[in-house]
Amino acid sequence: MDYYSSQISRLIEELAKLPGVGAKSAQRLAFHIINQPLEDVKRLSDAILEAKKNVRYCSQCCTLTDEELCPICRNPKRDQSTIMVVENSRDLAAYEKTAKFEGVYHVLQGAISPMLGIGPNDIRLKELMTRLQGDIKEVIIATNSSLEGETTAMYISKLIKPTGIKVSRIASGVPVGGDLEYIDEVTLLRALEGRVEL
Amino acid sequence: MDYYSSQISRLIEELAKLPGVGAKSAQRLAFHIINQPLEDVKRLSDAILEAKKNVRYCSQCCTLTDEELCPICRNPKRDQSTIMVVENSRDLAAYEKTAKFEGVYHVLQGAISPMLGIGPNDIRLKELMTRLQGDIKEVIIATNSSLEGETTAMYISKLIKPTGIKVSRIASGVPVGGDLEYIDEVTLLRALEGRVEL
Repeated sequence: MDYYSSQISRLIEELAKLPGVGAKSAQRLAFHIINQPLEDVKRLSDAILEAKKNVRYCSQCCTLTDEELCPICRNPKRDQSTIMVVENSRDLAAYEKTAKFEGVYHVLQGAISPMLGIGPNDIRLKELMTRLQGDIKEVIIATNSSLEGETTAMYISKLIKPTGIKVSRIASGVPVGGDLEYIDEVTLLRALEGRVEL
Repeated sequence: MDYYSSQISRLIEELAKLPGVGAKSAQRLAFHIINQPLEDVKRLSDAILEAKKNVRYCSQCCTLTDEELCPICRNPKRDQSTIMVVENSRDLAAYEKTAKFEGVYHVLQGAISPMLGIGPNDIRLKELMTRLQGDIKEVIIATNSSLEGETTAMYISKLIKPTGIKVSRIASGVPVGGDLEYIDEVTLLRALEGRVEL
């Protein structure tokens, strides 16, 4: 990229390392940034560095947070005896948007994947088992409906069963508003298996 | 976004201000950044701020650069008497990638657009006219083939004509590899009008 001067090339290179940002978008982003007022750019640059420096895992649920305990674990209104197990903080946010779940979470920070060499010890399972020694009524497994997510769900349920704590799995089926015509067979079969009486 | 702690929300907000980055991608980028090693994040944050602080307009061609003169204007091998006029630094880069143009550039930093209230005084036209007082053989207008680009091209050519300097416009037509079936009528007509004898 010798048609750009070094600082511009460097910025484009750094931006192009971000996921989903190709060479063209990196250029577009770089020139956008350069054309913004200095204070706005400073705010972006600071937000990046500060978030990285200060964000760590919540000491209870392992989600990413900038305090010892995340806002959800800290909230006295949440039911601490119901734990929803999710793969990552974005999945937690997805359920929080429903504003209906009143329990707390446990963020695995991944899923078991023999393909990628991620085993049970590489995700936050030990932390979950430690939490279960407290007063827990139910563990809801909300890992993704992918091969890795299902494997992880099976593994966790087997681990928890002997403790006598109730373990459940979120339902698989046709998404609301989904058109049957466009839904894959596996999902359709799941929806059939999981049918509920009316 | 109270399901994320403040520093994460702040980073997501800042990232979502970037062009083409929606709420979902901003989340994805934010968690990606947080999961990178600190030194990599520092490199990104620095690249952003340093580029903004140090990048200015080349004193000759008005492209964005971090030095007084950009690498192209500074290059003694380039033909300083042939100027290609482009709208922005990305268009300059696009022509540089062809590695065939040996002249220099003039970057307008925009195009005339009555719709957006951008007039001739809002782009780097005065700087172009000043350059033309030197020893210039040809000005090639390579603004975009959009309404704004065409308007700008017409305006510049009228401005330069009286000086006696040769003015040309890059060809419009069917892109190489383009399938006629999928090309709009205006382009097809342009290609017809611009036909060359074989």
